[in-house]
Amino acid sequence: MSQTNQSNRLTNQQKENHGAAGIFGTAAQLHDAAVSQAALFTMKQLQSEHPNLKFRHRKSISKLEINKALQKLDPDLGKTLFVPESSIKPDGGIIEVQDTNGNWRIVLVSEAKHQGNDIENIKQGKLVGKNNDQDLMAAGNAIERAHKNISEIANLMLAESYFPYIIFLEGSNFLTKDVIVTRPDGRNVELKCNSGFINRLDRLSAANYGMAINVNLCKNKFISTNGRHSMLQAASIFTKNNGEKWPLNEMIDIMLDVARTSLYMLKNEL
Amino acid sequence: MSQTNQSNRLTNQQKENHGAAGIFGTAAQLHDAAVSQAALFTMKQLQSEHPNLKFRHRKSISKLEINKALQKLDPDLGKTLFVPESSIKPDGGIIEVQDTNGNWRIVLVSEAKHQGNDIENIKQGKLVGKNNDQDLMAAGNAIERAHKNISEIANLMLAESYFPYIIFLEGSNFLTKDVIVTRPDGRNVELKCNSGFINRLDRLSAANYGMAINVNLCKNKFISTNGRHSMLQAASIFTKNNGEKWPLNEMIDIMLDVARTSLYMLKNEL
Repeated sequence: MSQTNQSNRLTNQQKENHGAAGIFGTAAQLHDAAVSQAALFTMKQLQSEHPNLKFRHRKSISKLEINKALQKLDPDLGKTLFVPESSIKPDGGIIEVQDTNGNWRIVLVSEAKHQGNDIENIKQGKLVGKNNDQDLMAAGNAIERAHKNISEIANLMLAESYFPYIIFLEGSNFLTKDVIVTRPDGRNVELKCNSGFINRLDRLSAANYGMAINVNLCKNKFISTNGRHSMLQAASIFTKNNGEKWPLNEMIDIMLDVARTSLYMLKNEL
Repeated sequence: MSQTNQSNRLTNQQKENHGAAGIFGTAAQLHDAAVSQAALFTMKQLQSEHPNLKFRHRKSISKLEINKALQKLDPDLGKTLFVPESSIKPDGGIIEVQDTNGNWRIVLVSEAKHQGNDIENIKQGKLVGKNNDQDLMAAGNAIERAHKNISEIANLMLAESYFPYIIFLEGSNFLTKDVIVTRPDGRNVELKCNSGFINRLDRLSAANYGMAINVNLCKNKFISTNGRHSMLQAASIFTKNNGEKWPLNEMIDIMLDVARTSLYMLKNEL
């Protein structure tokens, strides 16, 4: 297939994007969905939209591979490897497409993080804390670890002008609106989304330069300061504003949107 | 003072860099040193080298300030703030210098992370693990959280062409050579530095693009790929290769080296 045909085909398919409804129908509000399951469905859908392209899904990428990509850019980069078998394993794995040169190019990397069980605890009437007398548990900092894989994939994709990294957040530590939860005894507990006691979204926002959340940021932004240019690789951060779990179909819709942006960015090479 | 004089003065002082010996003498092998203490000594030394410059030390930087810096570069950046009082607090704080326009410019940010107590445990003859029958404890992943502050300061300094971020690592999870430790009963235990069971250096190396460790990487690297330019902000990662603690004077020497690079990069603006 010529590059022009391929490009047209991608554009048409993007216009015809009906989301994941085609796969799941309207009854597909599947909760407790695993992000890796969603990623596999996403790849299936991409494959059905692009029967002439080859896709693959990987669970991990070795540091050795990341180092090799870095070394191509500059011999000073990608030189250290302390544990030979080191690899990174994003929850949802990595989806790739084969380009016209036979190289595999990343179209989607996804992670899902749950932090904060306050809503579930309150619904069950469970008090928490050292003395079991608090409605809310002081939030932890585990989400800060998410920056690591984001940096790894950003390094791996330094030569690309897009960054298809999605992180799905859920749980009471990632609220963007106030939530009132009723205990079994009828008492209401309010979770204020701007409370430093429970909200941990600010711990992750460096990964998208404080840009909007719940937005596809796959296409890199370029900034220019003092005559210097910089390419910004921003993670697309999606949070369930009310702390609920991500339904499978919503994750797939978002994944498809980001993956389609990747294919669009690669259109002259597929 | 004219910019040219200032510039000459900085260059001369860099040539005359005798390290921290002047402050501490040779008896200054102080262990158990806190990185914030080292940072304060470093600032004192910088002030004595540059009596005409104004320095200050801060323990934290608010996310609001980081957002403002990002907004100056592009209105899409630095827009989110979920907890109004959010701030970041690198262990060693932030040292700044005032430029000729009265603006405070960062010359040093430092952190210190200890992970892995295997050496101490073996020396005490303490077995570890679920059944208290192991010499070595499987390493954790807490170090991955260090990427967060690195990203925050990198964002804050996107308009600068240098990145004076030092992270000092110590403990058995950051070895770069094999270490043999003798138990009280005389049995030797070998800690292999390339063991995935204990080594966690690869979890941090994305922060310097896999460049060399124990090197001052303050001056940013610029790479060009496919006609696009990118500025790389790399943390300077320093590890004690044998797992020992960082002596205060060694930390100060490294801090001074990085801070002096910052001053050199800013020489036309001081």
